[in-house]
This record gives sequence, structure tokens and C-alpha cells, in this order.
Amino acid sequence: MVEEAPAELHGAYCATYQEAVELVGRRWSGVILRAMLAGATRFSEIRDAIPELTDRMLSERLKELENRGITERRVVPSTPVRISYHLTPKGEDLRDVLTGLQCWAERWADEPAASGRGPR
Amino acid sequence: MVEEAPAELHGAYCATYQEAVELVGRRWSGVILRAMLAGATRFSEIRDAIPELTDRMLSERLKELENRGITERRVVPSTPVRISYHLTPKGEDLRDVLTGLQCWAERWADEPAASGRGPR
Repeated sequence: MVEEAPAELHGAYCATYQEAVELVGRRWSGVILRAMLAGATRFSEIRDAIPELTDRMLSERLKELENRGITERRVVPSTPVRISYHLTPKGEDLRDVLTGLQCWAERWADEPAASGRGPR
Repeated sequence: MVEEAPAELHGAYCATYQEAVELVGRRWSGVILRAMLAGATRFSEIRDAIPELTDRMLSERLKELENRGITERRVVPSTPVRISYHLTPKGEDLRDVLTGLQCWAERWADEPAASGRGPR
């Protein structure tokens, strides 16, 4: 079964893919990445760009993304210390995928859910 | 701030995008879609393709994806009744995005998390 899958999906299951899709799709993570792809670098800037996102959730997600090498936290030793958040090359490399998902969402946004269905 | 964002992301926040990324990235949904993109149509076939996925979770996720017009449930009135699950055009339209995510995951799979980081 696995061998007969379309070549580009390399079979029906892949743990690496599961980890990636669930990381990016975890509550808030996708919109945090989007805000950062759009240029936000300060904690408050990211938070204020996303309705209902709390400091606690943003902090938690940024740590998670940092642990996965997708974002990094930079500390500028000024007075006061300035902290900023940046996408790593790995994080920046998500741009096309997330833009593709944005386009997909827009393509189908105006359709009622049922219209995506084929004949029964 | 929003106006300066890269054109393709149309600003830092978009509710439609948030809904899409969190739907696809919800626990199990991404791998269920992948199994279906790879050709699985029977409940047991999808379940068996995904380690640790229970009947209950698969059933819940399929209902969620169906409610969003991404998959559909077909009933063939044979004896016994045969039930199969299929991607709608909207669901099939996720193929490129999810393949892109698969490729991203593979590109970065062998790197330790820290290697995605730039200089501090």
C-alpha cells in the first residue's frame, strides 16, 4: 500500500510530516509565523497583530518554535535590554507553504462548506 | 505595519488563514488528509495507515473535515452497505500545500533544531 502512493507523498504516512503539520497548525502557531513573515519582530508587535492572543500563549509558542529551530530570540544588551524575535532560515523557508495555505483559504472562503463536495 | 507586509501575505493577520492552518494542523487531520491524498478511501485503510490513530479520533476528524467541505462520506447501498471517504475538490486542492509541507519537513529533518538559527 505504501509503495503505491503518489511519488510526491512517499506513501500514506510519515512521522516527519506529521510533526511538521501539527507544529505549524497548532493553535496560534500559524498566525504567529504569518505575523513574523510579514515583518513583526517585537513581542508586543506580534501579540497586537493577533486578536485574542495572550502574552502567555505567545510566549509559550515562541519557545516551542525556537526549540524547533524555526524562530530565534535575540537579546541586544542595551539599556534597557531589547529583545526581538526572528525567523531562522528554516522558519523563513515556510513562507511558500504558508502563502499557499493562505491562497487555498481565500480560494474556498466564499463557498459554503457543502460546495466543496462532489456528487454522492 | 499591516500595509508594509509582503503583498502575498496581505498583512499580518487573517482569520480565514488562521482557520485553515489550524484545521489542517489539528492533531491527526494532516496525516488523515495525507493518507487520503495517497489514495486511501476506506475507514480501516486510513486508520491502519496511521500509527496510534484510534477509531474514535478518526471518526471525529472525518466529521470535522466533512463539515468543512474537505472530505465527503459516500454510502453505497449494497449488502452490506459500503462506506467510503473521499476528498472533495476543495480537499484535493490541498495537495500542493501539503506536499510543500512534506518537502519542507524533509529538507530540515536531518538538521538539529539549533542549526536553523542565524547568528545571535
